[in-house]
Amino acid sequence: MARTRQHRLSGSAAIVGVGRTSMGKLPGSSALGLGLEALRAAIADAGIDKNEIDGILTHPGTTSREGANHYLRLSEAAGINPRYAASKSMGGATAGALVQEAVMAIDAGLATTVACVFGDAALTGGQRFNSPNGDPGLNWGIWGMFGPQANSALGARRHMAIYGTTSEQLGAVSVTFREHAQLNPDAVMHGKPITIEDHQSSRMVVEPFHLLDCCLISDGGVAIVVTSAERAKDLAKPPVHIAGMGQGYTARKSEELDWWYLPHQRAVLDEAWAMSGLGPSDIDVAELYDNFTFSVLLWLEHGGFVAPGESGPFVAEGNLRLGSRLPTNTHGGSLSDAYMQGWTHIVEGVRQIRGEAGARQVSGAETCLTTGRGMALNTANALVLTK
Amino acid sequence: MARTRQHRLSGSAAIVGVGRTSMGKLPGSSALGLGLEALRAAIADAGIDKNEIDGILTHPGTTSREGANHYLRLSEAAGINPRYAASKSMGGATAGALVQEAVMAIDAGLATTVACVFGDAALTGGQRFNSPNGDPGLNWGIWGMFGPQANSALGARRHMAIYGTTSEQLGAVSVTFREHAQLNPDAVMHGKPITIEDHQSSRMVVEPFHLLDCCLISDGGVAIVVTSAERAKDLAKPPVHIAGMGQGYTARKSEELDWWYLPHQRAVLDEAWAMSGLGPSDIDVAELYDNFTFSVLLWLEHGGFVAPGESGPFVAEGNLRLGSRLPTNTHGGSLSDAYMQGWTHIVEGVRQIRGEAGARQVSGAETCLTTGRGMALNTANALVLTK
Repeated sequence: MARTRQHRLSGSAAIVGVGRTSMGKLPGSSALGLGLEALRAAIADAGIDKNEIDGILTHPGTTSREGANHYLRLSEAAGINPRYAASKSMGGATAGALVQEAVMAIDAGLATTVACVFGDAALTGGQRFNSPNGDPGLNWGIWGMFGPQANSALGARRHMAIYGTTSEQLGAVSVTFREHAQLNPDAVMHGKPITIEDHQSSRMVVEPFHLLDCCLISDGGVAIVVTSAERAKDLAKPPVHIAGMGQGYTARKSEELDWWYLPHQRAVLDEAWAMSGLGPSDIDVAELYDNFTFSVLLWLEHGGFVAPGESGPFVAEGNLRLGSRLPTNTHGGSLSDAYMQGWTHIVEGVRQIRGEAGARQVSGAETCLTTGRGMALNTANALVLTK
Repeated sequence: MARTRQHRLSGSAAIVGVGRTSMGKLPGSSALGLGLEALRAAIADAGIDKNEIDGILTHPGTTSREGANHYLRLSEAAGINPRYAASKSMGGATAGALVQEAVMAIDAGLATTVACVFGDAALTGGQRFNSPNGDPGLNWGIWGMFGPQANSALGARRHMAIYGTTSEQLGAVSVTFREHAQLNPDAVMHGKPITIEDHQSSRMVVEPFHLLDCCLISDGGVAIVVTSAERAKDLAKPPVHIAGMGQGYTARKSEELDWWYLPHQRAVLDEAWAMSGLGPSDIDVAELYDNFTFSVLLWLEHGGFVAPGESGPFVAEGNLRLGSRLPTNTHGGSLSDAYMQGWTHIVEGVRQIRGEAGARQVSGAETCLTTGRGMALNTANALVLTK
């Protein structure tokens, strides 16, 4: 598509292969094995020889047993000998961070083709809240406050108090993504539609989050192959360019009154827009990190799709549905496809831009925004993907 | 200095601040606290306000308790709110990898000034062989083969068998670096010179390594501040440019007869030379990762300073000594300064090029090669630093 490239790196690299395993409950699977299976699928999708891969960046899942050796063990298992290789563990911000690192390493000449890989047996392999971070943390548990859901619930409550956002509006996000999952045969919740009443009557997990405000912890693996725009021209599938990227972080600063609003996420998106030369009105499809329904509302506001406080009505009016203004989480997202720490969002963006999304294809999709967030709200990033 | 820049990134960024804590036995210290102290020293050295730092890349030490949250905890403790932040754990290859990532992130516009930080209370905080990698590994322990020393000993034995390298030649490395440590008041072994006889009579750890072939596990912290070459012009200290960088990896491929020789290290150095437009004859001072004496021999051969097999005689002839052909590990290295997983080597390279190395200053030093290796021989990298 025609656009002004604002930054030298914009469009310098492209995603040329994506792979995902089955997801959901996969007894007997392992984090490493699922990553390996996804990597093989992504290599096949790209139509390249595995020896062409000279970069491996991995995200050890919460149940990974390889620790800092993860990228070594995965490379050995795959029979790949990369030049550039590393692991990062940044929760739901890892996928975007690794794709960005791949773009930079390719530009720097430290690698030519980089595979980014994630696998986790989080459902059957024994999930360990907080343990992936290996951090005793703030011991909020003594106040009865456990896990990421409580962390996000406080922000949601604040949004409700200030802007009048309602549980039904959060429910609209959940119901919309579940509708999309009905068009995705790979989604865990395919064949299981829900209504807003189902959302409202699902059990409360932590106010204001009902069960159906929360993502689906799943086993599974995802891999993404990135190469230079030049090399991408000759491969099996149409390239999907990385036009913009942003990274951001915030320390927990409870003394700042607007901390709950995660203002660093706006900076992340501003950065990604600036690099890409695109803005919210240019986006055909959005794949937004949705560990909880509320997360989606903030992305919409931070991305400039709506003004602060207006995301609740926006989603309730159906603007995230296929065929509407901003089709979002067209695969079902973490809420209805599978929770893969944000990795599937990038895969879905690629498939939409390729025109491979089948019954859930957004007609003529040429641009996609993907977002991720991890480390207890602290780290966030975004990619702008284009044809 | 005059040279051809071979790559756009060459010289695009510079090291503008370095900091190191006391090293050795520091009871009551912590990995996080030592990293924080080093960071403060590096910021002071650069003469910048800490708020100018918008990138934090950390290496959690073997005794770090923060796991994947390390970069968050360090940022919080330092009161810094970076845009770009992450942690990597690649053992002795981490320092170089993080400096390289800083160069790339600055070039990409994801950060403007990046602090790279390491801290470890490895001596008094409870060292845990293999545990930093969190990997059950190959269980070589059942064969009586423990730790990195055994891993490197096999390669050293092979070099001896093929090239006739001797224990006395390994000892020459140890004695030379100890001489240099006498000129470094910060070195753990300052004031404790040794002779080749001391080396030969020190107890055997694992053949062919005597105790004095092995590095000094220590408590301590190191930090390095990187910024753009443009910004570097105006700071307190003369900039030290990152002219070349290389990264490499090898899977354990026991079926390849020359695996023991770590041929990927040659590729790493070739890459760094190519990016910098420099070669071994251009290097004024070398700071080579020396967890064991033998490691230095391989770097000399892989870097093209000598032909394969000729490193033993080269070091025995005194060519690594101050005032000779290739002054190496002028701070004393990991063998006589302190083992900081390769971090101090970069600091020493910076100080040499700045002309700040005091009694051990290499006259007119304008270029330095630094190397690092980690993950049980598997991952290596190099930096070419220039005025």
